[in-house]
Amino acid sequence: MKESGRKQGASSPCAACKLLRRRCAQDCVFAPYFPADEPQKFANVHKVFGASNINKMLQELPLHQRGDAVSSMVYEANARVRDPVYGCVGAISSLQQQIDALQTQLAMAQAEVVHLRQFN
Amino acid sequence: MKESGRKQGASSPCAACKLLRRRCAQDCVFAPYFPADEPQKFANVHKVFGASNINKMLQELPLHQRGDAVSSMVYEANARVRDPVYGCVGAISSLQQQIDALQTQLAMAQAEVVHLRQFN
Repeated sequence: MKESGRKQGASSPCAACKLLRRRCAQDCVFAPYFPADEPQKFANVHKVFGASNINKMLQELPLHQRGDAVSSMVYEANARVRDPVYGCVGAISSLQQQIDALQTQLAMAQAEVVHLRQFN
Repeated sequence: MKESGRKQGASSPCAACKLLRRRCAQDCVFAPYFPADEPQKFANVHKVFGASNINKMLQELPLHQRGDAVSSMVYEANARVRDPVYGCVGAISSLQQQIDALQTQLAMAQAEVVHLRQFN
């Protein structure tokens, strides 16, 4: 049985095992999520979280949640590599500012609706 | 010279060195940000990012940006401990949904303003 991460045949290690220079076992926890043809995907999560922490976090989750956990870790890691000071917390601040601006605009529009209805 | 993290005297290690069971040097990179009286703050970033990665990330930043980097890493780590599958990417999705809802409400209110003005 080949995991989905083994796109180049059973003897080809996944991107994680290749970077860590270790044998990619049949039951490798990384292989289904880090295919050999996407080396940067693992490189960034390894740089930010460390292979050992990712391994531990994945082992603590049921199989059906691991794909989502990897996606969110890859997103966070890429954000941290792009912005080493704020990472994806920078995106959160920016979204919160957008929400504040939209709430102000909405309150103004709703006040105008109330005002215009008085004269109709 | 005591760093701000050494609140319990020069001989007391910062929360990071205490957890890592090592001597807290005068120039410890963690001490200014991880005081001994907030052990959970370091425990979570260590669990998620690993002490070695945090050390590397801080060393790569100028001193004046390290406080913000630690705050954002603590925020991310706490979010990941609370929600091991989505971490703070869950907050990003939820904020984006709020933005979509506000934009819809705003468009409706603005359309109503245009409609009401036609009859004034």
